[in-house]
Amino acid sequence: MTNRQIWLRSTPNSVPAEEHFAIRETEVPTPAEGQFLIRNAFLSVDPAMRGWLLDEGNYLPRVSPGDTMRAFAVGEIIQSRNPDFTQGEYIVGLFGWQEYAVASPEQVLLRVTERDLPLSTALGVLGLNGIAAYFGLLEICAPRAGETIVISTAAGAVGSCAGQIAKALGCRTVAITGGEDKRRRCVDDFGFEVAIDYKAEHNLEHALAQACPNGIDCYFDNTAGPISDAVLANLALGGRVAICGTAALAAWSPWPQGPRVERHLLTKRASMKGFIALDYKDRFPEAITHVAEFVRSGKIRYFEDILDGLEAAPSSIERLYSGRNKGKLVIRL
Amino acid sequence: MTNRQIWLRSTPNSVPAEEHFAIRETEVPTPAEGQFLIRNAFLSVDPAMRGWLLDEGNYLPRVSPGDTMRAFAVGEIIQSRNPDFTQGEYIVGLFGWQEYAVASPEQVLLRVTERDLPLSTALGVLGLNGIAAYFGLLEICAPRAGETIVISTAAGAVGSCAGQIAKALGCRTVAITGGEDKRRRCVDDFGFEVAIDYKAEHNLEHALAQACPNGIDCYFDNTAGPISDAVLANLALGGRVAICGTAALAAWSPWPQGPRVERHLLTKRASMKGFIALDYKDRFPEAITHVAEFVRSGKIRYFEDILDGLEAAPSSIERLYSGRNKGKLVIRL
Repeated sequence: MTNRQIWLRSTPNSVPAEEHFAIRETEVPTPAEGQFLIRNAFLSVDPAMRGWLLDEGNYLPRVSPGDTMRAFAVGEIIQSRNPDFTQGEYIVGLFGWQEYAVASPEQVLLRVTERDLPLSTALGVLGLNGIAAYFGLLEICAPRAGETIVISTAAGAVGSCAGQIAKALGCRTVAITGGEDKRRRCVDDFGFEVAIDYKAEHNLEHALAQACPNGIDCYFDNTAGPISDAVLANLALGGRVAICGTAALAAWSPWPQGPRVERHLLTKRASMKGFIALDYKDRFPEAITHVAEFVRSGKIRYFEDILDGLEAAPSSIERLYSGRNKGKLVIRL
Repeated sequence: MTNRQIWLRSTPNSVPAEEHFAIRETEVPTPAEGQFLIRNAFLSVDPAMRGWLLDEGNYLPRVSPGDTMRAFAVGEIIQSRNPDFTQGEYIVGLFGWQEYAVASPEQVLLRVTERDLPLSTALGVLGLNGIAAYFGLLEICAPRAGETIVISTAAGAVGSCAGQIAKALGCRTVAITGGEDKRRRCVDDFGFEVAIDYKAEHNLEHALAQACPNGIDCYFDNTAGPISDAVLANLALGGRVAICGTAALAAWSPWPQGPRVERHLLTKRASMKGFIALDYKDRFPEAITHVAEFVRSGKIRYFEDILDGLEAAPSSIERLYSGRNKGKLVIRL
């Protein structure tokens, strides 16, 4: 049986594009004792994938030329040599940009439990996106009702979820996003009280000051860069910044420069803390249960952009960074 | 009765120097009902005084030309119109660079309780310096025994105290300081396991990597700037940075630039948080009691540089920033 894989041809300096990948055919591997064979149903496209290709310090080993591209995927177990994993069960893990994968239990990120909701959500709002939003917001921002929270890439899969949870908690939510379409979606679909199109603002720091007259209590940061600079200048006393991503910075070599943050943090007695969803692996079921309830009650809306076929994968990361997608980007096999 | 005061003539752009101040004579004021008259015994010289003269966002109103220079001082109550404050009692507050001050209860920072130790310590190791070291270390760094903590301006009044408390808690303490004299004092007098003279190091980041092979769990930051950049590059997973001061940055206009911190914080799931000792005012007695015990048991050593007479004040801030003092700088009246 043939397996098709997308593999890395060369390491990009910036955003990975179609030319950095190629497709190949191999034999479908056979699971060893304790392992299982998965047929991928949806492949994920995530901003973090860019970082996986770089050789700077990161939380996973680098993906090197020749490797099958690392990616989250949701798939069905079609053959199992492990009594804890049943044929017909759907699971999520780093199963890669390929049709079939063999995995061991420690490679499983989560089991799909909310089967009344679409399977693709296991890669988005009920997957790492929703989980990142949930823990970044509740554990690091820790907002109180009535506080003002600013979210960057607010129309994105993580940002929109974080904004809607914050709103459900009674916060005043302010979106930063790029483009009038997304700006409108933040208000109309995701319920942000104010949404700012940073591309249309001459002075984002000033626009934020007007949108947040009592300062910014929490900042859920998906961008870093000049957007964050404008937010930090408007922090309220005791402000909390959760660093979830650095999408505004195309490369870390040479290391990007910016205004130093120490004085903001000192005068406002504010904090910045980085996190990744994987840090909370033991508590994933808690997050999924809560987010699924919000989805069913309509308090969390989500959008997905579904590309068809493995051939769509090589150009999908570039597509993600271009901002053309409207929701969580996934590839249906 | 005549009062002599040091007043601000003009606002400096950088470190305040003798030329920015002048001396004047006024009448000693009379306390109103509820107030008391203090004869200052020691005046404090602190790095934070530079920030008090700038007009950027800060935690106290700016000191403007014409004002008596704001300063902490310890003095004796020589006349009281408040039953809660007794004549003969010693108190610390923002009594200014002057011989006499009238104050109300809300201006009192702390009452001197540890009368077996020298009075001048109320401005240093048993004052805001020790208090800042205590809370910045215990509340923000929150080190565990065996962890590695790096302290900048480690030979200074705050840094040396923080390092000695951390050592008493079982941490591995690493000093960053400027000059061979201070470097040796960090090891010999303050018990740091390693001390690095950043002025003598060609590559501080590399020197820190060698001194901290398991990474830096905690950083008590008194400097910001290039020293902090080198520390952040060596943070351990889950590292905590307490921002206490920004002594390495001479001015905030134009705002200084530096390497962006987000990627360090994200990949290491690390945090940075600013604080000032005054945030913990309700808990000052707890800190003073503990630090005084460490002083009596010899676990905390401290040094003071005592200048004589009000005339020494105008050049004292510049002296502080030049690094010529060996301990907490105070002026004896």
